[in-house]
Amino acid sequence: MAIATAAGQGAIAVIRLSGKNCFSVVDLIFQGKKKVSEAKGNTILYGSIFEGDQLLDEVLVSVFKSPFTYTGEDTVEISCHGSQYIQQRILEVLIQKGARLARPGEFTMRSFLNGKKDLLQAEAVADLIAAENEASHQMAMHQMRGGFSDDLSKLRDDLVHFAALIELELDFSQEDVEFADRDALKNLVVAIRKGIGKLLSSFRLGNALKNGVPVAIAGEPNVGKSTLLNALLHEERAIVSDIAGTTRDTIEDVVVLEGIRFRFIDTAGIRETKDTIEQLGIERTFEKIRSAALVLVLVDITKTSIQGIEQVWANINQELRKEAELVLVFNKCDAVDADLLKEYSTRFREAAVISAKNGLGLDSLVAEMVARVGKKPVKGSTVVTNVRHYESLYKADQALEEVLKGIEGGISNDFVAIDIRKSLFHLGEITGTITSDELLGAIFGRFCIGK
Amino acid sequence: MAIATAAGQGAIAVIRLSGKNCFSVVDLIFQGKKKVSEAKGNTILYGSIFEGDQLLDEVLVSVFKSPFTYTGEDTVEISCHGSQYIQQRILEVLIQKGARLARPGEFTMRSFLNGKKDLLQAEAVADLIAAENEASHQMAMHQMRGGFSDDLSKLRDDLVHFAALIELELDFSQEDVEFADRDALKNLVVAIRKGIGKLLSSFRLGNALKNGVPVAIAGEPNVGKSTLLNALLHEERAIVSDIAGTTRDTIEDVVVLEGIRFRFIDTAGIRETKDTIEQLGIERTFEKIRSAALVLVLVDITKTSIQGIEQVWANINQELRKEAELVLVFNKCDAVDADLLKEYSTRFREAAVISAKNGLGLDSLVAEMVARVGKKPVKGSTVVTNVRHYESLYKADQALEEVLKGIEGGISNDFVAIDIRKSLFHLGEITGTITSDELLGAIFGRFCIGK
Repeated sequence: MAIATAAGQGAIAVIRLSGKNCFSVVDLIFQGKKKVSEAKGNTILYGSIFEGDQLLDEVLVSVFKSPFTYTGEDTVEISCHGSQYIQQRILEVLIQKGARLARPGEFTMRSFLNGKKDLLQAEAVADLIAAENEASHQMAMHQMRGGFSDDLSKLRDDLVHFAALIELELDFSQEDVEFADRDALKNLVVAIRKGIGKLLSSFRLGNALKNGVPVAIAGEPNVGKSTLLNALLHEERAIVSDIAGTTRDTIEDVVVLEGIRFRFIDTAGIRETKDTIEQLGIERTFEKIRSAALVLVLVDITKTSIQGIEQVWANINQELRKEAELVLVFNKCDAVDADLLKEYSTRFREAAVISAKNGLGLDSLVAEMVARVGKKPVKGSTVVTNVRHYESLYKADQALEEVLKGIEGGISNDFVAIDIRKSLFHLGEITGTITSDELLGAIFGRFCIGK
Repeated sequence: MAIATAAGQGAIAVIRLSGKNCFSVVDLIFQGKKKVSEAKGNTILYGSIFEGDQLLDEVLVSVFKSPFTYTGEDTVEISCHGSQYIQQRILEVLIQKGARLARPGEFTMRSFLNGKKDLLQAEAVADLIAAENEASHQMAMHQMRGGFSDDLSKLRDDLVHFAALIELELDFSQEDVEFADRDALKNLVVAIRKGIGKLLSSFRLGNALKNGVPVAIAGEPNVGKSTLLNALLHEERAIVSDIAGTTRDTIEDVVVLEGIRFRFIDTAGIRETKDTIEQLGIERTFEKIRSAALVLVLVDITKTSIQGIEQVWANINQELRKEAELVLVFNKCDAVDADLLKEYSTRFREAAVISAKNGLGLDSLVAEMVARVGKKPVKGSTVVTNVRHYESLYKADQALEEVLKGIEGGISNDFVAIDIRKSLFHLGEITGTITSDELLGAIFGRFCIGK
């Protein structure tokens, strides 16, 4: 039993109960035309909740019958008036009647234990609820609906097929037969590794999309870093409305552009540039921007020669190219004449040309930023967003690498089989085919109460 | 259409739509086994919400058919995953399909306009949601279930009966007949005024229970005011639990004792008494504690003689008796010997004897505080908590006073009838029999969105 709606006062709140006895427990405090235990599944009863003879609230009770429920068990949802006092009192009365508070994520864990969802799908529920933008929402939805699970189950099937061949040979090892062509076996492992590799490499994007892409704005003092930052922060293209409940990010320097969350790092440093007196070299900035996945290299074209830019650009490329996507940005384009601007743009075709002050060119800069991050995940494709999944995939891949080495080195099938089982084990960890109480505790403890 | 659950992220959120077309609007974005428009009332459908071909969420949709709904109109409740992103996107898609956001309280206003509730009952819904303790919860529940409305309708019926007699005489005024005995008429008005008077006098209690009883702790420096305040604040007997969503009052110096909310005033002054150097007279405090409904007069019995207490007590009684309930409290009872304590308690039987430092006697002090406030409202009795109701009752009563004067002074029935109609008008204002758009706007504007 738990309050399933957001904490606080609303028009209504929903208290959810799941389990074998939940109908009879609710019947002890509910009076309506019909008893909960006599109602059909997926119907709604109107009635009153009593504590002894004291009326606590008039409520709607939704009745869901096993197995067609979220948890797979009988479930009741009490929709009461949204005062915190009423929510608490109803919880208290239910506790007196024998219900107990659910642990965080307990409903979803039961859903997993009752076979309604695999572990990947269950984990996606928490991601879905936490999703703040289109990209992370789509990834979580894909995973919750079993997209990732399907990919894995295909890989696992291939691997099981492969394992079967090897184990068969083991059974007949005395006879020294070879059931499968070594090259065909190798190709199979290579193909599986390629599949795993694709998932592994989606992790960087996935992680960035889920937690925000770290962006830095680099450039010498007074090139307009602070102005650009402010302009981008005002560019927000997220859902903006004055509907109650829409809270903007409390972290000031996060902006959602085209559904992707960008996190500006070291913005304190950027905002303080006005106070900088001497010219600081770009070098100084490197330390701070090493954690960025995307760096906007800002140049004031009213003050920098083409040679100067070439030098800065070469410099930065050498330092950061491997670690981050770099975008060259020419600022103050409104303050130079058209010919000069053309000269600059011809020389640096990849540069974004803007005027941060009056917002010129920001659209194409944003488009470039989105493009560099790899865009939104392709619809229907799996993106790994969870470190746990990444680790298991990585270990499965490592084991397969050993398998390959074993085959190539002509190592005994006994040892190859061990590595295959290892790989299967790690793939199984992800969907929860192989699991432990400890792992489940760690996963569902992250959930909110009531889910 | 509005989000009906509390703002923010929860396991689930509920979006409510009400009105003639709400089934067909939801069908435009919902795909399940059955269409919403084909579902029976009070049933729940499982399915998906789409924006074009993009899946937004898997949801439960509760279908309620007119007139058996909160608003009296067809109503749909979409129970979606509780991410703010999903909530917003579903609202957006519904807006694209022709729904519009509800104004605050609009669902309840429609409930009133469709005759499901009178105005008193509708107003009680907002009070119920805002109720933070047992007393205000019970008052709101009584009012929502029509208790107050019943009382008023009885008074109105009596008044209409009376008006009929007077108007009948008016019709026959040429003939100078008298259909009713003047004394009987007078008694009827007096009886109605008594009923109104009872409601009027419940307002002080009602207001205190709803908004908190203002309490002051008076006493010379170093008698232990600050210690008593802290002890009482820790005495809280409200629902205390570590259930997520239980937020304690953010205003520090409010405490709920036996279901009644006490608000300590000028606690800053109390807390600062340590810094006071010279002895300030009780007089100084009067200005600050005039707004209290309950004053705890604290005396240090280790340092004050019986004569001294008599003087203080007489002094305070003269100043404040009419404005507040006064409770004499002897502090530091642990530091005097039993005989002396007995002498003091015999002389001042009404005094509460405590030791704030180690919590002695706090139970009986709290019991006394609760008793002085008039306890919880008697179950099933009406308590006026709303200034609007109080004003209308007051005006109705004033008009009846004129009626009485008219009857006594032998004034023409024409004028008496005018005052009776005035009185009826003001009673009608309360339940909404007589109403205006402006009034409705003012009332429902106070509501939260989604109710």
